Amino acid sequence: MRVYLDNAATTAMDDRVIEAMLPFMRQHYGNPSSVHSHGREVRSAIEKARKKVAELLNASPAEIFFTSGGTEADNTALVCGIETHGIKHAITSPIEHHAVLHTLEDCAKKGKVKLSLLDVNNKGEINLDQLRELLQANPNSLVSLMHANNEIGNINDLAAIGGMTKEYGAFFHSDTVQTMGHFVHDLKNLPVDAIVAGGHKFHGPKGSGFLYVRKDKKIHPFIHGGAQERNMRGGTENVIGIVGIAKALELAYEDMAGHRAHIEGLKKHFIESLQYHIPEVGFNGLSADFGKSLYTVLNVSLPPSEENRGMLLFNLDLHGISASGGSACSSGATVGSHVLRAINHDPERESVRFSFSRFTTKEEIDYTVEKLKELYGVTV
Amino acid sequence: MRVYLDNAATTAMDDRVIEAMLPFMRQHYGNPSSVHSHGREVRSAIEKARKKVAELLNASPAEIFFTSGGTEADNTALVCGIETHGIKHAITSPIEHHAVLHTLEDCAKKGKVKLSLLDVNNKGEINLDQLRELLQANPNSLVSLMHANNEIGNINDLAAIGGMTKEYGAFFHSDTVQTMGHFVHDLKNLPVDAIVAGGHKFHGPKGSGFLYVRKDKKIHPFIHGGAQERNMRGGTENVIGIVGIAKALELAYEDMAGHRAHIEGLKKHFIESLQYHIPEVGFNGLSADFGKSLYTVLNVSLPPSEENRGMLLFNLDLHGISASGGSACSSGATVGSHVLRAINHDPERESVRFSFSRFTTKEEIDYTVEKLKELYGVTV
Repeated sequence: MRVYLDNAATTAMDDRVIEAMLPFMRQHYGNPSSVHSHGREVRSAIEKARKKVAELLNASPAEIFFTSGGTEADNTALVCGIETHGIKHAITSPIEHHAVLHTLEDCAKKGKVKLSLLDVNNKGEINLDQLRELLQANPNSLVSLMHANNEIGNINDLAAIGGMTKEYGAFFHSDTVQTMGHFVHDLKNLPVDAIVAGGHKFHGPKGSGFLYVRKDKKIHPFIHGGAQERNMRGGTENVIGIVGIAKALELAYEDMAGHRAHIEGLKKHFIESLQYHIPEVGFNGLSADFGKSLYTVLNVSLPPSEENRGMLLFNLDLHGISASGGSACSSGATVGSHVLRAINHDPERESVRFSFSRFTTKEEIDYTVEKLKELYGVTV
Repeated sequence: MRVYLDNAATTAMDDRVIEAMLPFMRQHYGNPSSVHSHGREVRSAIEKARKKVAELLNASPAEIFFTSGGTEADNTALVCGIETHGIKHAITSPIEHHAVLHTLEDCAKKGKVKLSLLDVNNKGEINLDQLRELLQANPNSLVSLMHANNEIGNINDLAAIGGMTKEYGAFFHSDTVQTMGHFVHDLKNLPVDAIVAGGHKFHGPKGSGFLYVRKDKKIHPFIHGGAQERNMRGGTENVIGIVGIAKALELAYEDMAGHRAHIEGLKKHFIESLQYHIPEVGFNGLSADFGKSLYTVLNVSLPPSEENRGMLLFNLDLHGISASGGSACSSGATVGSHVLRAINHDPERESVRFSFSRFTTKEEIDYTVEKLKELYGVTV
């Protein structure tokens, strides 16, 4: 059996998304910047996609800019937000995605901003009193705090944080990559200045994304070139990516409640099965707290075990189960997760992030529990 | 009849490119950074694509970095080339693509570099004596000169320019977007430090591209985030774009001589028909000179005519012919081409860029000549 429980890393494309993209691979190939008929039919598809995305998020089409993904969108919001608005101080947390953390660290290294990191407790909750103090002490700051953490699932209260940033006139960016397409974003009523999306996190294509920037907080372009995206991003548009991400978001909104109920049911069943079968199992961050975490993520902390030390993901993979460590590995070298380090996770225990989508089945969950029982020597 | 003669703007995708991409839309959806089986099968496709591109260009796979297109690749080479190598002076020409010109202008505006523009004559030829003088006077410069101009087709001698930049220790970037897939690039023997590609210019997908950076001229990343592209570009890879651009380049190299002969035949026929039928027709830049211009581009200058003044492209479009002005239009407002201005093109005359691909037919050319004859009142 092949089991895919790594949907926070990427999701399978929905067939209906592929169907929407195909005509722009096969028939409609014009350059959307061309004024002739070949170009106009493609331009029209892009603007329809923009309108659809704006409509779903309760924003204006003029506030939506298509990018090559969430990371480029984060870089644009941060680098150009700082430059355009003359910002000298940035606030973030140590458990942000590297698209935010590395970008702000680079800005700090280049002397553009002073960077302040908020404290995080053992559950991954950030210190909002400290945020208020920093905002008070540093007028015209940039605040970048993610909507939900990609590893431990913790959800930040964007309304509360946004309200606070408004009080002190800060520019508020939120990396919403993990919540886009899984939660409703009502941008007329949410006090954020910039949020982002990566299409492949909600059954759209990799290489697609968008940036929302509130009308009155306009920023300069990050990629210079032609007049595409209303002079906000040079480069011929990734038409199939744009058509694909808009279709994926439309499908996500079509039955978000149904998908959420399906996935929450599986997550609850998974938690209960693990608690029943694996002694001393734990859950990192707030990922087992249904009100305060992504319904798509469960970060499991397993008891110390000689057989599985540093090998658990590999052992799961041998059984056909794809999940993710807290850690990002490259060229065979395991680098510990900066998120698990920040919440002081016991390094003797193994952590696995399991993440779900509307395509995940109960069979996949049960099979995974069975294999974890075997790996941890639990007799049936 | 519908005629597409705007292949320098973008090309139709090759069916074989689409076929290569489809499995990565339908079956193989893993994140290439994931170490499990779903991820590994996709990682392997990306590295195969990189190896193929490197092989075709006689480069090393470690010198190829996939991007979202030619514009992002140009921005990366220029912005990060300047930053990484402590460059204070840049040299370019007024007829470069905006991806280069606007990016360098922004660097100059931010005080990072002093920018020198080379003189250009009425044929669009740049002044190489002046380049040498500037290099002599400004050690550690960055030089950015395109391989071939996208509007008038002029080809620069990269070997000569590159040799000169080597003499004076300059960093040499060339926007090769118009020649990639149409001419052979032998990077072990061509003295360039950075070149770029956009897949959609040679029958690959829009939103795909790559940057080549010579091993000993390494630069910092432009987009910060995860460790993708060997820490050179954060963001989940556009897998279908990468697979597609590599396949498109492979197909381009498979029968480049054959395609060139086919297109050159059409271009020659087009030139001769226009010269025979349209009195006072001219050709901008070197585009009618077969040795010195892109075989894919013919920039036609038509005599003054009341009926067609500012309306020629529109009139052609009404007849189903898609071509491009020297000008890039947006929201209905025609902005004159910076290239035609730089070469002092007579504003009383209308210019049209016709551009060809291996899919262009003789019927399309003949139909276009017929319509031009009608529009210019030439009796048969």
